Amino acid sequence: MTDAHVTESLTLRLKQIGARLEPVLEHLLARQPLAGETCRPDRLVEAMRYAALGGGKRLRPVLVAEVACLFGREDDGVLVAGAALELIHCYSLVHDDLPAMDDDDLRRGRPTVHKAFDEATAILAGDALLTLAFDAITLDEVHADPAVRLHLTRDLARAAGLGGMAGGQMLDLESETRARSEQEIRQLQAMKTGALLRYACRAGALLADASAQDVERLTRFGEIIGLAFQLADDLLDVEASAETTGKATGKDAAAGKATLVGLMGVDATRAELEKLLGEASDLLAPFGDRAAPLLALAEFITNRDH
Amino acid sequence: MTDAHVTESLTLRLKQIGARLEPVLEHLLARQPLAGETCRPDRLVEAMRYAALGGGKRLRPVLVAEVACLFGREDDGVLVAGAALELIHCYSLVHDDLPAMDDDDLRRGRPTVHKAFDEATAILAGDALLTLAFDAITLDEVHADPAVRLHLTRDLARAAGLGGMAGGQMLDLESETRARSEQEIRQLQAMKTGALLRYACRAGALLADASAQDVERLTRFGEIIGLAFQLADDLLDVEASAETTGKATGKDAAAGKATLVGLMGVDATRAELEKLLGEASDLLAPFGDRAAPLLALAEFITNRDH
Repeated sequence: MTDAHVTESLTLRLKQIGARLEPVLEHLLARQPLAGETCRPDRLVEAMRYAALGGGKRLRPVLVAEVACLFGREDDGVLVAGAALELIHCYSLVHDDLPAMDDDDLRRGRPTVHKAFDEATAILAGDALLTLAFDAITLDEVHADPAVRLHLTRDLARAAGLGGMAGGQMLDLESETRARSEQEIRQLQAMKTGALLRYACRAGALLADASAQDVERLTRFGEIIGLAFQLADDLLDVEASAETTGKATGKDAAAGKATLVGLMGVDATRAELEKLLGEASDLLAPFGDRAAPLLALAEFITNRDH
Repeated sequence: MTDAHVTESLTLRLKQIGARLEPVLEHLLARQPLAGETCRPDRLVEAMRYAALGGGKRLRPVLVAEVACLFGREDDGVLVAGAALELIHCYSLVHDDLPAMDDDDLRRGRPTVHKAFDEATAILAGDALLTLAFDAITLDEVHADPAVRLHLTRDLARAAGLGGMAGGQMLDLESETRARSEQEIRQLQAMKTGALLRYACRAGALLADASAQDVERLTRFGEIIGLAFQLADDLLDVEASAETTGKATGKDAAAGKATLVGLMGVDATRAELEKLLGEASDLLAPFGDRAAPLLALAEFITNRDH
């Protein structure tokens, strides 16, 4: 395929998976209570829907779906697991935007949840999105075997929590007042953004009953995606305008936070991105043409300008 | 047994279960990362330990353990499930105390987490405690059957989330600016405090492989405990001094929040508590003397002065 074809086909796949994901999220965020729930308070469910519906690239669910597809699983149960991961991602954005955290007023070109509602509602909406993710990942359609769902649940908790995303955000906040070495920045980014992207790829393989060896292979692919995503994000933060990204940029520098781009320079960062892309390609080589969509996604993440 | 004997034996059991719970929590909140975690940042793990270790009545884990014991299960796996529930309870206290929520400076006679650390750390510590709970509830020692652990996980999410505790806190916050009927207050309390107490009793029965009928019986017992707990708490809020409870009192009235005691009066509240205790006793009657500790616990909750 030519580059143009790859891009066109990737855009189509992103759209298709996004379109299948939306009703799954809509169903999870229904206004009617589920069995075992008393009621779903209007204001809270609206804030959660505001945070989770109708926006974003849905990169994490797309990764889950593409990896599962690589191993032959394409049903909507995969998207329920993807939705669980997306709920975690959305909760993290809601809490990270709070005044006590990154203090952002805009997200995806719209007021952040605490601006559109209020701080207390934003805190609770984040809490409830996080909790709902652990409801979704247990649902029967995710996988026929309860042991697999339990494995996915535990891995999700580890990717999202103290030793993963939440821990990474803690380290990132501390970076505003403490100098970080390159190794420390790599570790905090592996936690803050890397852990969920790694989980997305790992979960896709687990969902499709991939061999233990392939689960590890795709887990490594996810780690590469995570690092590439962050490096590309750092480049954007340096280079892009607020107009393109729909959020404030140059914030890392303004907050005094060291980034890998800042330490390594733009050229070395671009070189590392190329190297990562090569490693991703090598990892997917055994799967031949079937891995083309995943590889296109890796390239999209590496070269994205928004 | 005389009343004095019951009280003495209850106090001993509370102490014993609390002493067995502490190392379980300590293990979950270890400073070393688990498999699948990168590292556990010092500041975050310290804030979580501050919030969860060495304090509180441990009422929810005690309920889990006593109900499981009623059905013949007494091993420490029960306390791992109890610890998961306690982590959820502790996270809710950390977030409820935040300036944007109830804005409390004291908890159990100590500075609240956002006072001892800072707001961002308190938000993240709450998030990470909540997430860790969903790690703990999946652990092998909780139950040999993954399907049971999955059931416990999903029920925990529903008790804690949008349609349970978090939803109840949303309704409670709205009560500061909106009048509530008695029925609305009952619903919000059933969610805010009732849902976790109900889950504690239900989980105890599920953990010990109780019959479906007994699971429902103990679930109902948990609902009664939840209501009695809240009524007793409302009475305390009206009557007790800050000295006895270690937290600010009379806050509900100050915040303009209607309570059941406020609507029904003290005498009617006491009468309802007696009635609830009678119903709890009837529910436990089939279990004879074996239910004495649980019944003593119900009485303790109904008559507590702190």
